[in-house]
Amino acid sequence: MKQIYSGKTKDVYELEDGNYLLSFKDDVTGENGVFDPGANTVGLTMEGAGEAGLRLTQHFFEILKEKGIPTHYIDADIAKRTMTVVPATVFGKGLEVICRYRAVGSFLRRYGKYVEEGQPLDAFVEVTLKDDDRQDPPISAEGLDMLNILSLEEYETLARLTREISGVVKEDLAKKGIELYDIKLEFGRDAKTNEILLIDEISGGNMRAYKDGKYIEPLELEKLVLA
Amino acid sequence: MKQIYSGKTKDVYELEDGNYLLSFKDDVTGENGVFDPGANTVGLTMEGAGEAGLRLTQHFFEILKEKGIPTHYIDADIAKRTMTVVPATVFGKGLEVICRYRAVGSFLRRYGKYVEEGQPLDAFVEVTLKDDDRQDPPISAEGLDMLNILSLEEYETLARLTREISGVVKEDLAKKGIELYDIKLEFGRDAKTNEILLIDEISGGNMRAYKDGKYIEPLELEKLVLA
Repeated sequence: MKQIYSGKTKDVYELEDGNYLLSFKDDVTGENGVFDPGANTVGLTMEGAGEAGLRLTQHFFEILKEKGIPTHYIDADIAKRTMTVVPATVFGKGLEVICRYRAVGSFLRRYGKYVEEGQPLDAFVEVTLKDDDRQDPPISAEGLDMLNILSLEEYETLARLTREISGVVKEDLAKKGIELYDIKLEFGRDAKTNEILLIDEISGGNMRAYKDGKYIEPLELEKLVLA
Repeated sequence: MKQIYSGKTKDVYELEDGNYLLSFKDDVTGENGVFDPGANTVGLTMEGAGEAGLRLTQHFFEILKEKGIPTHYIDADIAKRTMTVVPATVFGKGLEVICRYRAVGSFLRRYGKYVEEGQPLDAFVEVTLKDDDRQDPPISAEGLDMLNILSLEEYETLARLTREISGVVKEDLAKKGIELYDIKLEFGRDAKTNEILLIDEISGGNMRAYKDGKYIEPLELEKLVLA
């Protein structure tokens, strides 16, 4: 088993059958010890974060599988904290796709002249380039097309999948009285078929979720959702 | 004559007939004494900058008038350094619309992971919010629509006008062997008809122009173009 990538919150290995194995770590992104799903640095290590992240990821990817929404997910091994996935190539040097239901985080930091904190947004989709040195700059559909990262047609697919997947997560959280404020997804192309797939994970570290107006920490979210 | 606005590079007065009078100053935007059309601060005062800016603005707005492209321009008085315009309301709290032919400035700072400095771009249009406190954040068509600043249909008009106007300027500069790298435009709605109009000015302070690979300062640009 060959390690092919070491990321902020997980490592990636290549299996003998050609599939990939994701190994979940206990590190979460943030700054100065405070969790922030939009941050580019590993801010803190939380015991159990890897397992909780994998449990939630498995939960959501299984729902998406049932609904026929394309993802890289094959299966998960909770005891080993690993997930088996089909290999996928990322767009350009990696994109993050955000779906927003409330104005918080970087949206508020950018557009605070026009919105109040927490103001409802209508499943607003935005794409940022993964680029730590440049603070993950936002980019338009036309920009992605011009830089040959994604065609305008592929962007439409990406935006539609983002709204579908985020809607699935939002609905599932709502069953437990939890409100999804925003969520960050990653997509790639199936290395064999070129189909656009949801990749990476869907865990507390990828979203801001609130209950009774109070932010829910990633580890707490896993307990509430899977209770 | 009532002063209704004092800007970085010009003041605005209301005339008795309801039209507006723009009075051009000798201040140009920049930082630490270096001219930068994208900067939010008045970096330096250049003697003659107001008159040169108005001369170039008159030159370009007269060409646009001939071509039937809608602008706020009525006429200009070079000796008084003033321009008479029809009143227009800005979109939201003000937008800047940029058309890029080469990757320089904030485009390069944001997307430098994907482009080389000076790489040709295909009349790439982007919109930023005028917001000094938030460094004029870029915003997508969908974002403008959601924040009720501009509808998707109005955005299309804005983008089309931006490419047309920038093309006119680019072509005119090319006659003097000058290459337009990027240009920043402002639009508004005609206060009476609601039609989308080019407003503000088109001068050296709004663009990056190069000759024989060398950047041309605003005052020098006026001399070269109007020679």
